[in-house]
Amino acid sequence: MENVDHIGIAVRNLDEQITYYTDVLGLPLLKIEEVVTEQVRVAFIDAGNTHIELLEPMSEESAIFKFIEKRGEGIHHVALGVKGIEGKMADLREQGVRLLSDEPRPGAGGSKMAFIHPKSSNGVLYELYDKSESGE
Amino acid sequence: MENVDHIGIAVRNLDEQITYYTDVLGLPLLKIEEVVTEQVRVAFIDAGNTHIELLEPMSEESAIFKFIEKRGEGIHHVALGVKGIEGKMADLREQGVRLLSDEPRPGAGGSKMAFIHPKSSNGVLYELYDKSESGE
Repeated sequence: MENVDHIGIAVRNLDEQITYYTDVLGLPLLKIEEVVTEQVRVAFIDAGNTHIELLEPMSEESAIFKFIEKRGEGIHHVALGVKGIEGKMADLREQGVRLLSDEPRPGAGGSKMAFIHPKSSNGVLYELYDKSESGE
Repeated sequence: MENVDHIGIAVRNLDEQITYYTDVLGLPLLKIEEVVTEQVRVAFIDAGNTHIELLEPMSEESAIFKFIEKRGEGIHHVALGVKGIEGKMADLREQGVRLLSDEPRPGAGGSKMAFIHPKSSNGVLYELYDKSESGE
């Protein structure tokens, strides 16, 4: 694990929340994009040493929609930056860690990502986030 | 706001969880300390660009005990590093942000800290964390 790439936060209304982060907390907005495969619209906020990723569901199919229905808005995951995500997934599996997918999935900004099962991390949803081949 | 100083995670058993972070995720343990005023024993894990703070309740009086009873173990708060916490608290109050205390309280490592009411941050518990006078 290299660092905390970002902290993912589930929100109902992206534009309202961007205003809170930029105008009230005084943190810059970096970019907005859609991750269609995950059915989320995301905004990246620059928190200095890491990013805050605000995630708004694009449909009821989105895991973020289901999270908000069940738990309300709030912190959804912590993304750990990794290089060579396939090898890292294999290492974790060997140590008995459960992952939510067998293969990495496409994430924001051309990244590859996979989640550790929150039962393996005592309730924390950790994302493995590999942007080493994304060109960003 | 300067950076994300740490991510606070509520755990039932600090020692077991330290082992997960160090041995499975491969992240170094920095220090363990007690914050008696908050009734928590905390471990700081080095995640590269920020810290992960594992919080174990020392008694049923601890807010972390109540959090785990209600929501289970998991991510509790995100600490934003600030300098001059009193001024920052006044700025936020002027913008209509609710805070959980009128004055800063003592935190880990000689820091001063205060929480933004999660209703003001759409479900996220943000801590303002000022260690500028702590000597650390």
